[in-house]
Amino acid sequence: MLKDYIDLEYRPKDDDFVCEYHIEPAEGVSFEAACNHMAGESSIDTWSDISTLSPEMAGELKPHVYYMNEEQQTVRIAYTQDLFETGSVPQILSAIAGNIFSMKLLDSLRFEDISFPRDAISGFRGPNFGMHGVRELFGVNDRPLIGTIVKPKVGLTSQQHAEVAYNAFAGGCDLVKDDENLTDQKFNRFEKRALLTLKAQDRAEAETGEKKMYMCNITAPTCEEMVRRAEVISDLGGKYVMIDIIPVGWTALQSLREATGELGLAIHAHRCMHSAITRNPHHGVSMLVIAKLTRLIGLDQLHIGTVVGKMHGGRDEVLALRDNCVLEHIHANEALHVLEQDWGHIKPMFPVASGGLEPTMIPDLVRIFGNDAIMQFGGGIHAHPIGTTAGATACRQAIDAALGGVTLEEYAKTHSELEAALSKWR
Amino acid sequence: MLKDYIDLEYRPKDDDFVCEYHIEPAEGVSFEAACNHMAGESSIDTWSDISTLSPEMAGELKPHVYYMNEEQQTVRIAYTQDLFETGSVPQILSAIAGNIFSMKLLDSLRFEDISFPRDAISGFRGPNFGMHGVRELFGVNDRPLIGTIVKPKVGLTSQQHAEVAYNAFAGGCDLVKDDENLTDQKFNRFEKRALLTLKAQDRAEAETGEKKMYMCNITAPTCEEMVRRAEVISDLGGKYVMIDIIPVGWTALQSLREATGELGLAIHAHRCMHSAITRNPHHGVSMLVIAKLTRLIGLDQLHIGTVVGKMHGGRDEVLALRDNCVLEHIHANEALHVLEQDWGHIKPMFPVASGGLEPTMIPDLVRIFGNDAIMQFGGGIHAHPIGTTAGATACRQAIDAALGGVTLEEYAKTHSELEAALSKWR
Repeated sequence: MLKDYIDLEYRPKDDDFVCEYHIEPAEGVSFEAACNHMAGESSIDTWSDISTLSPEMAGELKPHVYYMNEEQQTVRIAYTQDLFETGSVPQILSAIAGNIFSMKLLDSLRFEDISFPRDAISGFRGPNFGMHGVRELFGVNDRPLIGTIVKPKVGLTSQQHAEVAYNAFAGGCDLVKDDENLTDQKFNRFEKRALLTLKAQDRAEAETGEKKMYMCNITAPTCEEMVRRAEVISDLGGKYVMIDIIPVGWTALQSLREATGELGLAIHAHRCMHSAITRNPHHGVSMLVIAKLTRLIGLDQLHIGTVVGKMHGGRDEVLALRDNCVLEHIHANEALHVLEQDWGHIKPMFPVASGGLEPTMIPDLVRIFGNDAIMQFGGGIHAHPIGTTAGATACRQAIDAALGGVTLEEYAKTHSELEAALSKWR
Repeated sequence: MLKDYIDLEYRPKDDDFVCEYHIEPAEGVSFEAACNHMAGESSIDTWSDISTLSPEMAGELKPHVYYMNEEQQTVRIAYTQDLFETGSVPQILSAIAGNIFSMKLLDSLRFEDISFPRDAISGFRGPNFGMHGVRELFGVNDRPLIGTIVKPKVGLTSQQHAEVAYNAFAGGCDLVKDDENLTDQKFNRFEKRALLTLKAQDRAEAETGEKKMYMCNITAPTCEEMVRRAEVISDLGGKYVMIDIIPVGWTALQSLREATGELGLAIHAHRCMHSAITRNPHHGVSMLVIAKLTRLIGLDQLHIGTVVGKMHGGRDEVLALRDNCVLEHIHANEALHVLEQDWGHIKPMFPVASGGLEPTMIPDLVRIFGNDAIMQFGGGIHAHPIGTTAGATACRQAIDAALGGVTLEEYAKTHSELEAALSKWR
């Protein structure tokens, strides 16, 4: 009976999309029935009652439930790529992460991972710069990059905003970004902020001899306005934009990647709101899936968690995210629900650690992430006892100490900004 | 101390945004501390440590936690409208539904409702047609509208797709839509499907003397392509488009509303994937919030659940959604986490019941929803024993019976299509 999509002998083909789900069937529903129905609902449906679909077409398009582990509540389904529109993240999600979350047959469902076939990957651009391209922009290859978020989150005037950014750049920050909820408000208009803060960036570059990058938040109500803001940044000589990926949504992100490709801008992805979808281990979508979609579309860097800090996220999960950001080939990891993935032509995406970080955490961050991370400090820079400039300097000193194998305490003896930081945060 | 955002004496001002959250603080965190920190994280942050924000500005922008009910785990926060960009759903979400979902201080957080002040509402268009405008398009005011989804979900050729649509129209369907995962695939290209199915619509209109509307899925990878598809529909004489609201995201929806305003198209909102965010009563975002944002932006009709049928969704929740779709003024309902809302100039949005419906459920649907609903049947029409045309006719007969106060069994004695439906689904 073709309606039965379970085929444990099936081996995914080279052009199959493979998805892994964690499922908890409703009372009285067998694991097999739940798997079978979700496979249908996420593809060709219960076509067997309907006369219009030919058995040949059904045979070509039907999904295969090829792995079921009832004890671990895990199912893997292979979908032929013909089910999908080429290069469309929204359509992929509508299919394999759409209605199935609503099924009464399931008490809960978590979409853990998706492995894209080579053909599907070739339909996406991937990052324009990527991790190595971003490093080239800075001319910095031998250490993590240090960033900050202008604080307070909102409430500064554009002039004050630019001053805080200048101080952070002058003290040693490579990158300065807006916070996720600052876009274009009365007290700090987008155009004025962009103009003044990019000027502050140029001044700091000239004074320090280092490359500095301001990442202006271009999150906007419409795609046209978002792209217009990207053009404003480009016209002002900026190299970077940032975007709140979940609130704007996937179609806007694919549009942004098209636009920034032409404009030559790098994109910083802020993941605010992701935890509404990713945080519950029983239901929703994993951050891994969101990270993979973000890399596929082609944003250049993404917040993936801190392990330490104020935000939720375990070490293993964060490191699995890091791997799927930066590696060319990912090996399967059953315990973490990670599927094998060959990233083909898609460049690595720079991982960003951000959220409640303090300079004292830098040695741990270096141990966890190594060199290839952007470390962002908010209050951890601006609440430094001597102020923002000293806060940025203290972070750079802590990086030097950690990479040199010296304890922060030892290094602080000859570096007063770090010493002041330790006095506050130790 | 200004850092303390709790002020139970505060009464929200006319220009405040008011949000209600369900929160579960982490172990060892007091309810008050959790409320205070989430108010800060969703607005001006812990600005008190930072010298750059003036106390005057902080006083103007600070949030007010004005209601806390620890037993019911409910908190209400009022945010001044100056914190928000005018007319930007993504920025609203980045602020009041962004980072707070990730805070370690909270084990879980559910964003239950948001009440928009009149000024904010005036920054949005709302539906172009809305429920009454859609009824005018059809010239039908005295009964629910009957729709179907072409089934199987995917796998038909464009020609077969148009034939199924024609049969459904001819049998009595007012609306025919694509399924959420059908956009532009190899086996059924967008352009060809749009052309052939709109021709089928015209033929059915001519033959039945009734207005018929085909709702083609224009979910697309980029905004430009989405709008181009809307233009194709308009050029072909279509009056409707449909869109998968969660997979495409809010910025694309606001763009679409701008475009369809000029094109004169109505928009059908499919909510697939919403349950990834809305289904867990302890964490995520309520469907009520999604429905309100959808109405605010201005989609004309939205899936809100069925009460009966294959998809999750309780009666009280669905009726609260219905009210916020159609009414001008919403009264608060503490038990359902519904805040008062004055919808101002925003038109009502037509509620759609869809998901596993069968014709035998029609009397219940009429009792639950009354006249003002679009009822959509998939397998409930196409799996009718005599086929799609008879399935559509059976649904219209069931509507006539229910509105006439006659049992389906009684009505079936003189209506053979309904009789055949009862033989299958009773």
